[in-house]
Amino acid sequence: MTVDNEAQAWRWPEQRWRKIVSKVRAGRSLKPRVWRDGARAAVALSFDSDHETQTLRYGQSSPGKLSQGEYGSRVAVPRILKLLASRQIKASFFVPAVVAKLYPEEQRSIINDGHEVGLHSWIHELNSELPYEDERRLQFQAAEVLEQITGQRPVGIRTGSWDFSQHTLSISREMELLYDSSLMADDEPYELLEEGQPTGIIELPVEWIRDDAPYLMMDRFSPYRPYTAPSAVLEIFKSEFDGAYEEGGLFLLTMHPHIIGHRSRMVILRELIDYIQLKSDVWFATHKEIASYCLKQAGQDL
Amino acid sequence: MTVDNEAQAWRWPEQRWRKIVSKVRAGRSLKPRVWRDGARAAVALSFDSDHETQTLRYGQSSPGKLSQGEYGSRVAVPRILKLLASRQIKASFFVPAVVAKLYPEEQRSIINDGHEVGLHSWIHELNSELPYEDERRLQFQAAEVLEQITGQRPVGIRTGSWDFSQHTLSISREMELLYDSSLMADDEPYELLEEGQPTGIIELPVEWIRDDAPYLMMDRFSPYRPYTAPSAVLEIFKSEFDGAYEEGGLFLLTMHPHIIGHRSRMVILRELIDYIQLKSDVWFATHKEIASYCLKQAGQDL
Amino acid sequence: MTVDNEAQAWRWPEQRWRKIVSKVRAGRSLKPRVWRDGARAAVALSFDSDHETQTLRYGQSSPGKLSQGEYGSRVAVPRILKLLASRQIKASFFVPAVVAKLYPEEQRSIINDGHEVGLHSWIHELNSELPYEDERRLQFQAAEVLEQITGQRPVGIRTGSWDFSQHTLSISREMELLYDSSLMADDEPYELLEEGQPTGIIELPVEWIRDDAPYLMMDRFSPYRPYTAPSAVLEIFKSEFDGAYEEGGLFLLTMHPHIIGHRSRMVILRELIDYIQLKSDVWFATHKEIASYCLKQAGQDL
Amino acid sequence: MTVDNEAQAWRWPEQRWRKIVSKVRAGRSLKPRVWRDGARAAVALSFDSDHETQTLRYGQSSPGKLSQGEYGSRVAVPRILKLLASRQIKASFFVPAVVAKLYPEEQRSIINDGHEVGLHSWIHELNSELPYEDERRLQFQAAEVLEQITGQRPVGIRTGSWDFSQHTLSISREMELLYDSSLMADDEPYELLEEGQPTGIIELPVEWIRDDAPYLMMDRFSPYRPYTAPSAVLEIFKSEFDGAYEEGGLFLLTMHPHIIGHRSRMVILRELIDYIQLKSDVWFATHKEIASYCLKQAGQDL
Repeated sequence: MTVDNEAQAWRWPEQRWRKIVSKVRAGRSLKPRVWRDGARAAVALSFDSDHETQTLRYGQSSPGKLSQGEYGSRVAVPRILKLLASRQIKASFFVPAVVAKLYPEEQRSIINDGHEVGLHSWIHELNSELPYEDERRLQFQAAEVLEQITGQRPVGIRTGSWDFSQHTLSISREMELLYDSSLMADDEPYELLEEGQPTGIIELPVEWIRDDAPYLMMDRFSPYRPYTAPSAVLEIFKSEFDGAYEEGGLFLLTMHPHIIGHRSRMVILRELIDYIQLKSDVWFATHKEIASYCLKQAGQDL
Repeated sequence: MTVDNEAQAWRWPEQRWRKIVSKVRAGRSLKPRVWRDGARAAVALSFDSDHETQTLRYGQSSPGKLSQGEYGSRVAVPRILKLLASRQIKASFFVPAVVAKLYPEEQRSIINDGHEVGLHSWIHELNSELPYEDERRLQFQAAEVLEQITGQRPVGIRTGSWDFSQHTLSISREMELLYDSSLMADDEPYELLEEGQPTGIIELPVEWIRDDAPYLMMDRFSPYRPYTAPSAVLEIFKSEFDGAYEEGGLFLLTMHPHIIGHRSRMVILRELIDYIQLKSDVWFATHKEIASYCLKQAGQDL
Repeated sequence: MTVDNEAQAWRWPEQRWRKIVSKVRAGRSLKPRVWRDGARAAVALSFDSDHETQTLRYGQSSPGKLSQGEYGSRVAVPRILKLLASRQIKASFFVPAVVAKLYPEEQRSIINDGHEVGLHSWIHELNSELPYEDERRLQFQAAEVLEQITGQRPVGIRTGSWDFSQHTLSISREMELLYDSSLMADDEPYELLEEGQPTGIIELPVEWIRDDAPYLMMDRFSPYRPYTAPSAVLEIFKSEFDGAYEEGGLFLLTMHPHIIGHRSRMVILRELIDYIQLKSDVWFATHKEIASYCLKQAGQDL
Repeated sequence: MTVDNEAQAWRWPEQRWRKIVSKVRAGRSLKPRVWRDGARAAVALSFDSDHETQTLRYGQSSPGKLSQGEYGSRVAVPRILKLLASRQIKASFFVPAVVAKLYPEEQRSIINDGHEVGLHSWIHELNSELPYEDERRLQFQAAEVLEQITGQRPVGIRTGSWDFSQHTLSISREMELLYDSSLMADDEPYELLEEGQPTGIIELPVEWIRDDAPYLMMDRFSPYRPYTAPSAVLEIFKSEFDGAYEEGGLFLLTMHPHIIGHRSRMVILRELIDYIQLKSDVWFATHKEIASYCLKQAGQDL
C-alpha cells in the first residue's frame, strides 16, 4: 500500500532491470487462425477448487473460515457440475493436492464428467516465498497425488494465486507440462520464453479482470469486500467475451467454487453461458484441449 | 492482507491439517422435504443488535462512534419492529449481554412482539482470542442476563462476528443449545460434527453474502466503506432468495440495526419483504422455529 | 482493521462501560411537529471547506495533494455558491480557521450570499488526540478568527472529521454554542446530554451515509477510492430525503467542496436539489436556522 | 490510513503553513476564450505507459506482475493506436525512460502516428522521496533517452503517480519545459506559481476522477480492486466531458495502457470517443498542442 523505495530501483544499472524483465516473457503468439470445427472463438472456463486451503495456507484453523471453504466442496462443486452437464460444457478444475486428498470423490466425479483436473499447488502455498527445493518437491508431489486420485497425470498448472517464483517455469519444464495458466501478457495463448529462449510451454493467459475473486471475495480481516454487484460482474465477463468473439480469440475465465458457487452468483455463470451459447460458433473446451489444439495448429513444432 | 507464511503450512504432516479441518464440520443435511404448512421455502430474518458494543469491544470510548451505535437502539430497532409488525413477520434478534443491560426495554418489546432473542456474546468480544475459561464463563453469563431480562432462556447462539474458537462448539453443547447460527458450510440447515462425531446441534448457516455489513459498513479508521448501492444490495438479497425458493430451501439473512435501520437502507428490507411476499408459499420464521421444525422433520432423532 | 483485544473489554466491570456510554448521549428529541411556514420536511445542506488542511493536518507538504485542496477554493466553492444562488437556497459552510485565513474573501462571499459559516477546527486536527488545553484553546481561537473575518460569531460547530474527544462537548458548552453537528444518534435534532444531564446544546445529526466522502474520496496512500458511481450516490441521497419527507423530518447532508465540486459530482447535487424542489413544502435552511427553529418550537426552555 | 498527529500541525506558527501552501500554486487561468478553429471544448487524451515499471519501481521481480505490465506493450498500446487512428484522434503518451528503452519501436510508432511522447520519470520512481540531485539527474536523463529514441525533445512532463517534490517545479523550469500535467488545482489550464512568482510553466491539470486507475486498478497485495463497473466509469467520464463542454473548457483524461487496454475496458474509451464525437465542435489534441495554443491565446507573454 505504501511505497517501498528501499530497493532504490532508480539507481539500478540497465542490465539489472533488463535481466529481471527478461526472466519469463511472452514469445510467439499461438492464437490459431481458426478454432476447432471452424469455431470463431474459444471459451475456457476454469474453477480453482481452493476450498479449505484458503484457511490452511496461512496456518490458520478458524472453524468459521474453514466452513466457508467447506461450502466449496459440499455445495458449490456439485452445483457447478450440474450446470456444466446441463449445458454440455467441459471445463478445467485446478486443485491443490490437499484438497484432492480431502475430497478424492469430488475429483473423480469431475474426471468422470469429462472435465480436466490440473495442478494448483500443494496447500495453496505462495510459490515465490518458497526455497527452490520446497517448490520443486511440492509441485512434483502434487502431480503424484492428482494422478493417484484421478488416474490421470495432470498436463497443466495454474499456480496458487497465479504466483510465480523465479523457478516456477523451469520446474514446469522439468515436469514436461503442456501448459501454464498463471500469467497475463496477452489475451491469446503464447509460448513462454525463459531468459529469451523458447520453452515449449504454452501459456493460456489469465487476468484478474476475468476472475470472480477481485469483485466478490470477502475476507474478514482483510480489506476485501464483495462491493461489486453480480450484474456488474456479468457485464464485465460478457464484455470480455464480446471482445474475444470480435477478435476471433480466446475467452478464459477463472472462478472459485466457494465464491461463484453461491445462489446469487451462479446467476452470473448461468447467464454468461446462456449469453455465449446464443452464438453457434463458439468452442467450449478444457485448458488441455485448447493448448493441444494451439500446439497442433502451430505445426507441432514447439 | 499480506501473506503470513511463517506457519509454513506446506511442511505440515497430513495429520495436522486433517485434524484442523475435522475439528468442526458439517454433518447430515437437515433440510426438510417440505416446510411448515407446505411452504416451499423458509425465510429467517435476523438482526444482530450490536449497538454500542462495536465501540466498547475495542476498548474505545469515542462519543462519535458510540452515537452511531446508539442510533441502533434509539431509531433503528423501533423502525424495524414497526416494519415487521406491519408485515406480520417474526424474526430473531441476537443481542450482546451488554446491549441487553443497556436497553432492557428494547429486548422486552422484541419478545412482546413475538420475536426471538438469541445469544450474541458478552460485549461482542472476539471469541477466538479468549482463554477457554473466559469464553465459557461469558457465554453462560450472557445466557443468564438475557433470561433475566426477557424471561426466556435463549436456545440459540450467533457468535460475535461469526467468530468461532476451538471451544465454542463444546461450550454450546454443554449449554444444550438447540442451534448455532455462525457457520457457512451450506445454505441449508445441517447437524454439526465435532471431531467427526454428531453433536445434536443444528447449524442455521450464515454467509457474508447475506449480510448487510460487507456492503454498507462504515468504519472511519478501517478501509470499510459503504461503496455498494442499496439497489445492488437488494439485487443480491433477492437473488439469494430466488435461489432458495427454486431449491425449496432456506433464505437466512443477517442484518444490523445500526446499519440497515437507516432511511435509505430500510428501503432494501422493505422491498425485499414485498418481493418475497408476492409468493404465497413462503414461511417467515424465527431461527428457533426453523431449527425446531427441522429437528422434528428429521425424526427428532438428533 | 485488525482487532485490538488488548483492552480486554470483556473483563470490564459494568460501571466502566456504563460510564463510557453515558459520557455524551442523546436526550429528548427536538423534532418539531411542523417545520417553518408549515413545511413538511427540512433540508440542511452543509459544506465542510477543508481545502488544503487535508494535507496540512498530517504535517504534509505535497504540492500535488495541496493542489487537490486548492481546487476546493479556486473552483468548487464558486461553483457551489452559483448553484445555491440559482436555486435560492441557503446552506452552512464549516470552515477550519486556517482555511479562513488562507481565503478570507471566500468566507465573506459566503456570508454575503446569506449562508452560514460555522466552526470546523483549527487546521482539521484530530480532536480526540489533543490535550484538553490545546483542544480548548484552538476551539476558542478558531471562533475568534471566523468572527474577525466574517464579522459574525459562529454559533455552531462541526468537529473535524466528526471527531469528538471526552472534552469537546464541555468546551462547546463553555462557548455557549447553539448547536453541534458531529454526532449520529438520530436522524432528527435532539438535545445533548453530558453524563446524563441536559446540556442545552442542540445536536443536528450527521451520518456517513449522508456524506460525499465515503463514496467519492480518493487518497493515494490510503485504501480509499471513489468506487461508487455518482448515480448510486444520488440514489442514496434521494432515498435519505424520501425517508425524511415521509416522516416529516430533517434531511441533513454533508459535502466537501474539493470532493463534490467537480463537474461529474455537481450533477449529484444539482439533480438532488431539483428532485427535492419538485416538492413545494420543503424548507431549505442553514443549520443555525434549523437549530433556532427547533429551540423555539421546544418552548425555548432548553 | 490512520492519522499521524506526530507533526502536530495545530501547533505550527502561521508562517509555517503559509510557506508550505505557497510553494507551488495556481496562478492566472490560461483558459482561452475559444478553442482552435472555434471549437467549444478541447479534449486531451493521455496514456501513461507504465508497463513493467509498476513492478520494477518497487524493486520487485515477480514474473506474474511483470506480465501484467508486458500486456501494456504487447496488446494494449497497439489496440489503443488502432482505435485512435480509426477516429483520427491525436493523443499524448507519457513514458518512463526505462519503458522507452524496453520498447523503442513502440515509442517510434506513437510518434509516427502523430501523437506526443512526454516525460514520465525514469523507472516510475517516487519523486518526493528522492534526493534533489537524483531527481534532477533522472529527469534530465529521461529527456535525453526519449529524445534519442523518438527524435523529438519532450516539452512536457507528467510526474510518476502525479507525485511532486519540493524541487520538481524548479527542475522543470531549468529544463524550460512548456507544460506540466501532474497537478489538480483547476479543470482548466493555468500558469504555475513558485513561491508566489509566475514561472512560465503551463499546468494542464489532471484529476483522479478522470483517471482509469482509481476505479479499475488491481494490485494483489494492496487493497485496490476493480470494484467499479466499466459502465459506471463511462458514466463518470461522460459527465466530466459534459461539464467541460457546457463550460467551453478542457476535458483531460489520464489512462494506462495496461489498465484501459483490456477488451472490457476499451469499450469505455470507444464509447466515450463516440459520445464526444457526436459533437462537431470539439477539438481533440495532444497536451503539447493544447499548451501551445493556450500560450498563444494568452498573448505569448508568459
